Amino acid sequence: MNDVSSISSFADIRALIAAMPGPDGDARARWAAREPQLTKPAGSLGRLEEISGFLSTWQGRHPPRLDAVRARVYAGNHGVTALGVSAFPAAVTVQMVENFRHGGAAINQLCKAFGVELGVESLELDRPTADFTRGPAMTEAECVSAFRQGMAAAEPGIDLLVLGEMGIGNTTSAAAICHALFGGVAEDWTGRGTGVDDTHLSIKIEVVAKGVAVNRSDDPLMVLRSVGGRELAAMAGGILGARMRRIPVILDGYVCTAAAAVLFALDRTALDHCLVGHASVEPGHRRLLAAIGQRALLDMDMRLGEASGAALAVGVVRAALACHTGMATFAEAGVSDKH
Amino acid sequence: MNDVSSISSFADIRALIAAMPGPDGDARARWAAREPQLTKPAGSLGRLEEISGFLSTWQGRHPPRLDAVRARVYAGNHGVTALGVSAFPAAVTVQMVENFRHGGAAINQLCKAFGVELGVESLELDRPTADFTRGPAMTEAECVSAFRQGMAAAEPGIDLLVLGEMGIGNTTSAAAICHALFGGVAEDWTGRGTGVDDTHLSIKIEVVAKGVAVNRSDDPLMVLRSVGGRELAAMAGGILGARMRRIPVILDGYVCTAAAAVLFALDRTALDHCLVGHASVEPGHRRLLAAIGQRALLDMDMRLGEASGAALAVGVVRAALACHTGMATFAEAGVSDKH
Repeated sequence: MNDVSSISSFADIRALIAAMPGPDGDARARWAAREPQLTKPAGSLGRLEEISGFLSTWQGRHPPRLDAVRARVYAGNHGVTALGVSAFPAAVTVQMVENFRHGGAAINQLCKAFGVELGVESLELDRPTADFTRGPAMTEAECVSAFRQGMAAAEPGIDLLVLGEMGIGNTTSAAAICHALFGGVAEDWTGRGTGVDDTHLSIKIEVVAKGVAVNRSDDPLMVLRSVGGRELAAMAGGILGARMRRIPVILDGYVCTAAAAVLFALDRTALDHCLVGHASVEPGHRRLLAAIGQRALLDMDMRLGEASGAALAVGVVRAALACHTGMATFAEAGVSDKH
Repeated sequence: MNDVSSISSFADIRALIAAMPGPDGDARARWAAREPQLTKPAGSLGRLEEISGFLSTWQGRHPPRLDAVRARVYAGNHGVTALGVSAFPAAVTVQMVENFRHGGAAINQLCKAFGVELGVESLELDRPTADFTRGPAMTEAECVSAFRQGMAAAEPGIDLLVLGEMGIGNTTSAAAICHALFGGVAEDWTGRGTGVDDTHLSIKIEVVAKGVAVNRSDDPLMVLRSVGGRELAAMAGGILGARMRRIPVILDGYVCTAAAAVLFALDRTALDHCLVGHASVEPGHRRLLAAIGQRALLDMDMRLGEASGAALAVGVVRAALACHTGMATFAEAGVSDKH
């Protein structure tokens, strides 16, 4: 990625994906040379070991760093909210953006707790996407514009990017993307989101089914454009932008992972630089994680969005780095190794 | 608990258990009055909400605090190591205590990462417990002495106590305690610990079976004395001491939870002020968590001990408190509630 502004079409996005850098084997080897020398039984830190290895591999350096950790929360509005798919009115999206700006939301507290710089970006909240049961939610230009805005979050110098969203109605988009990409029936992917009752859950399932039927396509970028939303396109852009700059990413819950799945559907290796922060209780998320071969770091029965589960996982990622870089070796500490 | 030094027998411990304080309903009610006002769909922070409620309930105040978080790691040596139950020589216990003192172990990095004051206490490392395949590992006086030392960790003013251990051979003790308390066969409870091979795993299973057969008792404190160890007795003491002073506790993995299970076997409510920090990959731990009705906070494939899983969970507990105390209410933020 040389210049974000040069991305102006789906073809440009595809070209970027074809040029993605892979894992850094040399940095990985340097991580792997140090890890077994640390004063603990081999493997006994489990996923903490995997995480520090992941950071080295995808930052392309050893030791890895977590000096600059950035969270970006993208906010978008959705035409389908008019159909009754959410328990909250669409006006809440802009109200919550204000709440983020004033420091009152969960994500503000979590970013503060784990040393994460938080930015919130509104994506044309006064211009909701079109009702996708009647045709594509966005034009290609709208979709690419949001994607490009997300790519810009991956600035040089960032050590870890945390992605999330706010958008009343967007679990409906997430469900439709998953249904379109991975099949099954609409019920498989559709949950209660912020907490719809049975009647509105039925409506939501119908909306998902109809959206996918009306916009049928084998092209993952067309799926993103047709049943996604601006904040989903932005998160997908953030993931790809981060990859081009060797910035590891922590994904949040269902909506964020659904956006990521678009890239996975384009290239099976496109999420190799990503960890999933948590498994949401939104039932489609576990199914989606299985489909993309990811295991979440945390399982806290959360379903808030806002990057909250991803930000919570930053604590674990920082701990993993602290162990790898801070622990003494057997030789330094004079501790006997195995019999 | 008025005076720790007054505990000099199992009868004294039983009397303390009979006098344990229960949950603070008033503090819980004040927590429950604030939580639904926060700017998020009800319940959407999942276990983070449970944790802040737990802290209020068991600290007996609202808002709860986490200003003084203390970790205590107890170290003990075990006579059964002479039988070949561990992959590491017994000398490693004292070497690792030195490593803790010099800041080189995993637990040092984790405590630093999450603002936890770490203390390490050696329990007569030059005097291992007796080989429990030939009779009780400890006298009642030895067991009570270690229990009392653990109780002392629960000093007034502490907001959260994190417990863990170091002791080559002590997953053998943990397995024997679980087998004695919860039945099944020795294989059910015996894992590879720091990493024994198949031959030594067979020996370990035999040692666990024989230890339980030789020391058969229905009294959980006799089980602790017979097949436990000093560091296990100290952790049990820390848990009970904390309860008496309304200090919530985070338990670590298999060995720590086995020590806690002794209290659970004495009184089904004795661990209500405890969270389990993580689920160990030591296979007996999951079985044990099911037996005592606990769900671990984290599942990171760890099996190190040292309070490492519990200390890692402190990050999550701090995040839970930050959300409950720091978030804006719907009214403060001008955010619309549900339709």
